[in-house]
Amino acid sequence: MTLTNISQVKVFGGWHKQYTHSSTSVNSQMRFAIFLPPNATTNNPVPVLYWLSGLTCSDENFMQKAGAFKVAAELGIAIVAADTSPRGDDVADDVSYDLGQGAGFYVNATQAPWATHYQMYDYIVDELPNLIEQHFPVSQVKSISGHSMGGHGALTIGLKNPSRYQSISAFSPISNPMVCPWGQRAFRAYLGNDKDAWKHYDACELLKSAQSTLPILVDQGDGDSFLTEQLKPENLIAAAHLHQSPLEMRMQSGYDHSYFFISSFIEAHLHFHHQHLFKM
Amino acid sequence: MTLTNISQVKVFGGWHKQYTHSSTSVNSQMRFAIFLPPNATTNNPVPVLYWLSGLTCSDENFMQKAGAFKVAAELGIAIVAADTSPRGDDVADDVSYDLGQGAGFYVNATQAPWATHYQMYDYIVDELPNLIEQHFPVSQVKSISGHSMGGHGALTIGLKNPSRYQSISAFSPISNPMVCPWGQRAFRAYLGNDKDAWKHYDACELLKSAQSTLPILVDQGDGDSFLTEQLKPENLIAAAHLHQSPLEMRMQSGYDHSYFFISSFIEAHLHFHHQHLFKM
Repeated sequence: MTLTNISQVKVFGGWHKQYTHSSTSVNSQMRFAIFLPPNATTNNPVPVLYWLSGLTCSDENFMQKAGAFKVAAELGIAIVAADTSPRGDDVADDVSYDLGQGAGFYVNATQAPWATHYQMYDYIVDELPNLIEQHFPVSQVKSISGHSMGGHGALTIGLKNPSRYQSISAFSPISNPMVCPWGQRAFRAYLGNDKDAWKHYDACELLKSAQSTLPILVDQGDGDSFLTEQLKPENLIAAAHLHQSPLEMRMQSGYDHSYFFISSFIEAHLHFHHQHLFKM
Repeated sequence: MTLTNISQVKVFGGWHKQYTHSSTSVNSQMRFAIFLPPNATTNNPVPVLYWLSGLTCSDENFMQKAGAFKVAAELGIAIVAADTSPRGDDVADDVSYDLGQGAGFYVNATQAPWATHYQMYDYIVDELPNLIEQHFPVSQVKSISGHSMGGHGALTIGLKNPSRYQSISAFSPISNPMVCPWGQRAFRAYLGNDKDAWKHYDACELLKSAQSTLPILVDQGDGDSFLTEQLKPENLIAAAHLHQSPLEMRMQSGYDHSYFFISSFIEAHLHFHHQHLFKM
């Protein structure tokens, strides 16, 4: 598989690079970004934190705004930021910000017109890590994190693949998409009307169905304007409690839904993942 | 003078806020952003670092991308990010990115059609600090920094007002605008053809004319694509050397002109300014 490098910039002694490639899973051109810490070499492959962004974002928002590289460089962790959907003129879209391009919800769509390209679950779980491990000085040891729609993505992908990830974290995740407007609209479009199909992509349903042993850290601002209607962290706490799945939910007083919030706590998430990425 | 608050977001325990106001110096509506560290109160006014951005930027680029708030919060320094020019439908503009709106060069224009609004020197030196000191829990102790065109602004404004600022720093400044294409184009438009008028806004000319005692720190990437044609750090070194003005110029191997570069070294600049802001 060919990667085309479209940017490379030195940062904190490491490198931020962007690539495009033809994706077989989503059947379109995709772009991603990778941060490589200064100690990443073929002789010293480093673990990877995968970052999944929220609605309307691309690979760039986290990399430009989160302020993650200083500590990632110190800890020797690579970061990969994926795009939030397939893109392009031939890819189905919607005029609203919460469906279609920029709003893939990290599921494999089964419904027309979405199913042709919106196979973001397969892209994130299989294709992207395979590409990263083939082309960069990284190990197969990985964790996953994300924000909002990407927090939902990190929780569901981590919970469904406990052998692939060491730890999960999320900022302001859509915790229970089956019962919030963003999730219901996306799941109806991508997955159809059968709610049993939705349960495979709902973090609360996954935690209710069986115990998870993967460590999970969630930060949630209590000044977040989406808190009550869309995010529902209390449902995630209740679902984790049911089978004693490990979840640390930290309510952060006065913080909102923005990257200013993420930047304030990203270093704590990197230290959390570091504990689990390097314990083997 | 009335300030209109248009955003406020908690970050690192402090606050990022944006305001608009009617400016008497540039005769248009202006916007700025302020970061207030958690310890800033009426009983504990904190010093301020003024940040001047580069071509095409607004008050937002530094605040979203520099990663400055963690250390500014720890050190108790407020940061004010100004806009780079007056804005609006009635403000003269040019189709190119390096003249007109977004490209004020921090001078007082004397030539039509620019002179009506492009009085950015007065705005940054007098009006904005007066507003800030009137409306926020800050002291009159301040330093100044900036990037590229804003590095030129920080150097010239600091050098021309040594009693107002404790220290100056810059990233990739336009060091000698009189002899580079960006500077010549802007100065010809804003100041006319008389090069004696240009000298008042050229850091190298200011350092050549007399000794400066203000401490200056400059970081410059040697992988910066504007280095040779536009930035000319060697001219700044030579001009500072002439009268032994204190200048630390750090060439940073492999870094470019982006905010990734700024983010890599902003903490060092904050520690440098902290030394001088708190020594009184």
